Amino acid sequence: MLQAALARGTGHRRAVFEVFARRLPHGRRYGVVAGTGRLLDAIENFRFDDDVLAHLDRTRTADPETLEWLSGYRFSGDIWGYGEGEPYFPHSPLLVVEGTFAEAVLLETIVLSILNFDSAVAAAASRMTSAAHRRPCIEMGSRRTHEHAAVAAARAAYVAGFDSTSNLRAGYTYGIPTRGTSAHAFTLLHDSERDAFTAQVESLGKGTTLLVDTYDVAEAVALGVEVAGTSLGAVRLDSGDLLAQAYEVREQLDALGATETKIVVTSDLDEFAIAALAAAPVDSYGVGTSLVTGSGAPTAGLVYKLVARESADGTLEPVEKKSKDKPGVGGRKHAARRHDRTGTAQAEVIRVNGAPEHRESERALLVPLVRDGEVVGREPLDAARERHESARAELPSTAVQMSRGEPAIPTLYEEH
Amino acid sequence: MLQAALARGTGHRRAVFEVFARRLPHGRRYGVVAGTGRLLDAIENFRFDDDVLAHLDRTRTADPETLEWLSGYRFSGDIWGYGEGEPYFPHSPLLVVEGTFAEAVLLETIVLSILNFDSAVAAAASRMTSAAHRRPCIEMGSRRTHEHAAVAAARAAYVAGFDSTSNLRAGYTYGIPTRGTSAHAFTLLHDSERDAFTAQVESLGKGTTLLVDTYDVAEAVALGVEVAGTSLGAVRLDSGDLLAQAYEVREQLDALGATETKIVVTSDLDEFAIAALAAAPVDSYGVGTSLVTGSGAPTAGLVYKLVARESADGTLEPVEKKSKDKPGVGGRKHAARRHDRTGTAQAEVIRVNGAPEHRESERALLVPLVRDGEVVGREPLDAARERHESARAELPSTAVQMSRGEPAIPTLYEEH
Repeated sequence: MLQAALARGTGHRRAVFEVFARRLPHGRRYGVVAGTGRLLDAIENFRFDDDVLAHLDRTRTADPETLEWLSGYRFSGDIWGYGEGEPYFPHSPLLVVEGTFAEAVLLETIVLSILNFDSAVAAAASRMTSAAHRRPCIEMGSRRTHEHAAVAAARAAYVAGFDSTSNLRAGYTYGIPTRGTSAHAFTLLHDSERDAFTAQVESLGKGTTLLVDTYDVAEAVALGVEVAGTSLGAVRLDSGDLLAQAYEVREQLDALGATETKIVVTSDLDEFAIAALAAAPVDSYGVGTSLVTGSGAPTAGLVYKLVARESADGTLEPVEKKSKDKPGVGGRKHAARRHDRTGTAQAEVIRVNGAPEHRESERALLVPLVRDGEVVGREPLDAARERHESARAELPSTAVQMSRGEPAIPTLYEEH
Repeated sequence: MLQAALARGTGHRRAVFEVFARRLPHGRRYGVVAGTGRLLDAIENFRFDDDVLAHLDRTRTADPETLEWLSGYRFSGDIWGYGEGEPYFPHSPLLVVEGTFAEAVLLETIVLSILNFDSAVAAAASRMTSAAHRRPCIEMGSRRTHEHAAVAAARAAYVAGFDSTSNLRAGYTYGIPTRGTSAHAFTLLHDSERDAFTAQVESLGKGTTLLVDTYDVAEAVALGVEVAGTSLGAVRLDSGDLLAQAYEVREQLDALGATETKIVVTSDLDEFAIAALAAAPVDSYGVGTSLVTGSGAPTAGLVYKLVARESADGTLEPVEKKSKDKPGVGGRKHAARRHDRTGTAQAEVIRVNGAPEHRESERALLVPLVRDGEVVGREPLDAARERHESARAELPSTAVQMSRGEPAIPTLYEEH
């Protein structure tokens, strides 16, 4: 595609690509943009080195002219996007890439891979942190997804309100707080549960979290308090009826005087299980599989579509495909979220072509990320986390319902 | 956990960990081991460099003794596993890791991340190549999963019978054949579909694949044959009713004399859509989203459990946890697949403790992968691909049914 466009001369035409979702998955009420920070790093480093070019030559993947062009590749255009952490809705133009066709089309895979995965995890994470109210959620899903995806998942979960991760690499790379508890293997390694608890408390202090369901929960809770005293940090439940057990263990801990000892629950939790535990005496949630697999929607389903390009006479023209079940809406878009007087979001307003408009009841959603090839939109990860929290709070209360439904606000196309 | 075990001295106890699935996802008939080759590379390179150790120190993640131990970390134990590409069933011991507790417990996350993701993709891919009979399948899912997971997905799909991938990095890294077609953006870039097709055919030759559903399919097919002649390589359909269109397009191509021109279909295909197209005049399938997300099962759900460890007196003892809903089966296992006289698999036979047995009607499943820390089980990727094909062919015919059901063969625990 690139080679043919370069040979024809059309590869140098100015082009505008747009990233959007045709629909939200599974009756979700909103999506969450995540991965933007990772994407900016990836674009900055997007190059073709000699080894790769030699491989493409050897496999005749591209002709010499194309390889020559690739050897000097560096994205030199402009990119705008929704701020990381921002909710989105069907057809929200959440990334806009403008450059020559050749340089912009080459970014499709990296743009979509990053945004599709990270946004899928963030959307699930947002529902979970919503269901958890203010109780801390710990990301523990590394073992259930690709080893590098695991690190990205911890980052996306943090953007959407998770407090910490068990992935140490995510702590190292992104500064996300890390936490962990011991596994059943640790208890089984020792000659007795008492040996295991003693070893753990001696090494990590009384504030540690003991895993209490390897053998008998009630015996383990009693043993934990015996070994660590009433200042034992927490106990973790990882099997059985978490709801009933949480009450029993809370009662037992209180009776033993360990009124400050917390209860951490894990065991295939998802947003529904978290919501079901809302009234139970649980202090924090460790979430794994369901989080890193997007809780039923492992990809955000975002697409990267050409919406405008320079025509033979040099003007930028809207373009769109006409296929029956996947029609496009051509033209460069601007987007804003409209609010009512109480500050509650009412609609996602999309204006096609023309310049952005600024209205008092609206918040513009596209911010500059790359200008003339230079990254201008980098921000600390906590900025994305804060944006998510405040933007989610603006959505109508239906947004945080767990049940399937329509998008929380409608997407409106408006004339200028 | 590591720190406490090292401090207690128990970290140096000999330990055996086992990777298995408690169940197959979604009524699947078999799982597929994939990622083994990637895992061996990862274990060989599993080290803690100075930057990482400084981070762990600064964040007080581990004490100085543990950091000192980590600085010299190198797995020195033994690993056996099912050959890559081998089908597996509930409780199949598909990886056995033996070493000190400390060195073996540290591998849990990398082992599970790789095997869980790659095996999930391979299991879905196997159903798809089964449904496609011998028609080629092209992996096209890179944009729907994490950017590095995408490369692993292409590899896992190849193991399970896919012919090629659109991921050039997978071609570069693993030598997998690469293929691609043009996108709608390429057609829209040009002033007319004729311009686009002409540019593509001029640059890539008549054997290229033209995308024909940007505007009107019948017009595009006629135009494609006009531009490229009757030796046009293929046309791609990416929307609408693929079944009806395949017949229409085949008829049109034949009427135009382009009897050798092939039809490639894409558009959210999964194993069910592929099966539904079995009788249609389709020549190959491009599969994306559904493949890289495991077609409803984005993780294989494999766990890494301690099944035996040295006790205080130096003997290796089976261990297992007793929690109600997730009990374990302790002890080092050996596994074999039992066949009837026609060579059809009858059962997955697991023997706990003791030495492996060799029986004529059985094929031993565990092969040495790592011995004294040295990788001994490396093999060309095509060996895994061939193993998958032949081992799948041994399964009872129920294995390749698309509907939900029980595992194709039972898992039997046998006494020595």
